[in-house]
Amino acid sequence: MSNTQQAIEFAQRHHERYLNELKEFLTIPSVSTLPAHKPDMQRAAEWVAARLSDLGMKNIQVMPTAGHPVVFGEWMGAPGKPTLLVYGHYDVQPVDPLNEWTTPPFEPTVRGDNLYARGASDMKGQIHAFLKAADALMKNGGLPVNLRVFVEGEEELGSPSLNAFIAQHKDLLKCDIALNTDSGILTPETPALVVGLRGLAYFEIWVHGPAHDVHSGIFGGSIHNPAQALCEIIAGMHDANGHVTLPGYYDKVRNLSEEERAEMANVPQTDDEWIKMTGAPQLYGEKGFSTLERIGARPTLEVNGLLSGFTGEGIKTVLPAKAVAKISMRLVPYQDPVEVGDQLIKYMEEHAPKTITWEVKRMNAASPILVERDSPGVRAASAALQATFGAKPVFRLEGGTVPVVSMFRNHLGVDSIQMGFGLPDDNFHGPNEKLHLPNYYRGIEAFIRFLENVAQTS
Amino acid sequence: MSNTQQAIEFAQRHHERYLNELKEFLTIPSVSTLPAHKPDMQRAAEWVAARLSDLGMKNIQVMPTAGHPVVFGEWMGAPGKPTLLVYGHYDVQPVDPLNEWTTPPFEPTVRGDNLYARGASDMKGQIHAFLKAADALMKNGGLPVNLRVFVEGEEELGSPSLNAFIAQHKDLLKCDIALNTDSGILTPETPALVVGLRGLAYFEIWVHGPAHDVHSGIFGGSIHNPAQALCEIIAGMHDANGHVTLPGYYDKVRNLSEEERAEMANVPQTDDEWIKMTGAPQLYGEKGFSTLERIGARPTLEVNGLLSGFTGEGIKTVLPAKAVAKISMRLVPYQDPVEVGDQLIKYMEEHAPKTITWEVKRMNAASPILVERDSPGVRAASAALQATFGAKPVFRLEGGTVPVVSMFRNHLGVDSIQMGFGLPDDNFHGPNEKLHLPNYYRGIEAFIRFLENVAQTS
Repeated sequence: MSNTQQAIEFAQRHHERYLNELKEFLTIPSVSTLPAHKPDMQRAAEWVAARLSDLGMKNIQVMPTAGHPVVFGEWMGAPGKPTLLVYGHYDVQPVDPLNEWTTPPFEPTVRGDNLYARGASDMKGQIHAFLKAADALMKNGGLPVNLRVFVEGEEELGSPSLNAFIAQHKDLLKCDIALNTDSGILTPETPALVVGLRGLAYFEIWVHGPAHDVHSGIFGGSIHNPAQALCEIIAGMHDANGHVTLPGYYDKVRNLSEEERAEMANVPQTDDEWIKMTGAPQLYGEKGFSTLERIGARPTLEVNGLLSGFTGEGIKTVLPAKAVAKISMRLVPYQDPVEVGDQLIKYMEEHAPKTITWEVKRMNAASPILVERDSPGVRAASAALQATFGAKPVFRLEGGTVPVVSMFRNHLGVDSIQMGFGLPDDNFHGPNEKLHLPNYYRGIEAFIRFLENVAQTS
Repeated sequence: MSNTQQAIEFAQRHHERYLNELKEFLTIPSVSTLPAHKPDMQRAAEWVAARLSDLGMKNIQVMPTAGHPVVFGEWMGAPGKPTLLVYGHYDVQPVDPLNEWTTPPFEPTVRGDNLYARGASDMKGQIHAFLKAADALMKNGGLPVNLRVFVEGEEELGSPSLNAFIAQHKDLLKCDIALNTDSGILTPETPALVVGLRGLAYFEIWVHGPAHDVHSGIFGGSIHNPAQALCEIIAGMHDANGHVTLPGYYDKVRNLSEEERAEMANVPQTDDEWIKMTGAPQLYGEKGFSTLERIGARPTLEVNGLLSGFTGEGIKTVLPAKAVAKISMRLVPYQDPVEVGDQLIKYMEEHAPKTITWEVKRMNAASPILVERDSPGVRAASAALQATFGAKPVFRLEGGTVPVVSMFRNHLGVDSIQMGFGLPDDNFHGPNEKLHLPNYYRGIEAFIRFLENVAQTS
């Protein structure tokens, strides 16, 4: 029996132990955006470091950044073999609206095939599956490659400290192939490899009217209500065909080839399934494109938050002084997150009325990504998925954004393999986030095979 | 020296005592919309009852309603003279945003000519000025008329219990003339009498998209964002000329006569003053109408609150499940608050896209009011104001809404004199609400003269 097969069988015998350990990880409320959780961030980082230590890794460090710490560890015991750099993040999204969770977000609970907890799928479950794959190999003949593990705590914030950190630690992170486990597949039976990721540009738009909240009876009708003005401004950002109207927004958008469109049309996912997954009454989007194209290959502009005036129970007849929208755009190659910010400001200059004042705050930016399919890393991952799932993986252009992928390319000169096992209905970022446990276990096996395949690429 | 003159001089000697007593009233946080303040509502009602007792009034009662109690008291010691019913409210608006107050809202503070506190102008200061006018007369020969005082605790909620209460207590409230002290003037030098009040219709519009908050990367671009859809719906409610687009909205609107328009054009209030008062960069409103016409004679539709998605600090890339707007309309004769609700629903049926679901909640309704100018009560008030301010009062169509006025007309068969001394820049409903103290003192004098004039109308 090969090391790989032994490791897979070892992992199968240890499902319960792995699950319990993952639950322990998930009880730590490592919400990176909330200052009150700062001590939990440190705890989560140290928890990851302890797991690297369990694996027998060396040079383990919990390294400070301008924000939350980074965890690093390495095992360089396979001279002559490739070095794999694995990336993950231990931070999670906020949990509001808390009252919509069936069980508390930091009390991991199994119901049916699923484990419910904040971070279960995005992405404590993913990085943990990789660490357990390494564990199974370590206990059955050793790792076939050199391994560097790099787990950050600011991904859900848009990784603000990461670029500087990677630039400063190029030697520490040097590798032949990078693996980003913050990814997903389409259905439990359909493995997938992400070869494209959308970028992100996040903004706040503030609209100001009267100097302070005023009475809507006394002043209503005589000055422009900032909440109304903000709605008018936002409504103008899409035309009747669902196109974004910012000036120049599509100028640099990469068009899909006929081949890519045909490939995407073959993905086993129907609009009916998509509607069911979201619970929305109908689909919506840019005219002339399929759902998968809208998500993977077309840029968007979304309202992430709106706030103005009185939002408590009951009535208050206020004409608010100000209104704010959180707006983010998902970008595709070859859009630039700074340029779309300029386009947003140009739109505001052209369309915001003189009856209000406004400002645009730039909150975050990440470039879109496209990966070469015919590369050793993609081939190693593809074979591992095929062997584990018994089906060829679908190459995907994904809607989400992983800033670290562009940073690895810029500073380390490597493309990242996007391989993880989240499902589209895992409720990332929403209430009742879940991890499909059969996928978690298959993920461990696929990672074992991937490590073995990477060893063959040298 | 007449009783009136003695009473006026008495009041002038007691400014400090009156001010201290008013401050005591203002320390009670009687916020009717917040359940946590229920005990404060009772305290405020009892405080008012104690002041009626100080006056020597009879039949003083703190009467329960379905909501907050009503305070009643009467003095019927002037047989053959008219009976005046005076209305006020002891409840106040919420104080948020609290951090914008210079001094705490329930710690009344004098700065310059102004007394700062929630409720100072709207309207504890107004009803208190009337009670002190009665006090000055009582101490100087007695009241020249029969007096019934009626102070409710739900005005800032739209007086939900009041209609049933008045209908049940017609005999208790029987009167010849009604006075509503919840009113204001234009500038400290320009007395005014309100002869028109706008009605109110208040709604919540809920827009629902996906069944729960979802990830804006995974799903963005494929379903209609409810916050975006709500903005699109609200943006469509006004056209480029500032007209409200609800179907049939203007069908029943009363047009101003040329005489009324000329009168309003003569009101000593400029657009520059109005801009300065609000702090808005420019004025805005329905094309073809002056500022005063927009406020007093034209209906409006305002956004009072907006809430959707993530509104905390920082970023969260959520595509929200729902979005809500609080929307209110100020109505003019002869619009009907139920009909405009039907028009709103019709607008939604015609314009809301099928990519979202929606509901409209009716929150509150009050009819608009128009008062006969050539009536004994209006003449008594007009003469009192002219004698006190040395200037003829301006007849005003006011933008605000006082539901009790239409209830008095319906159940008691009387029109209400709208006479109070608030100023447009008193920050009703906003932070740093204030009462202009010279006006408060002049208000006491004007009420003394008004009571004397009412006695002559019999």
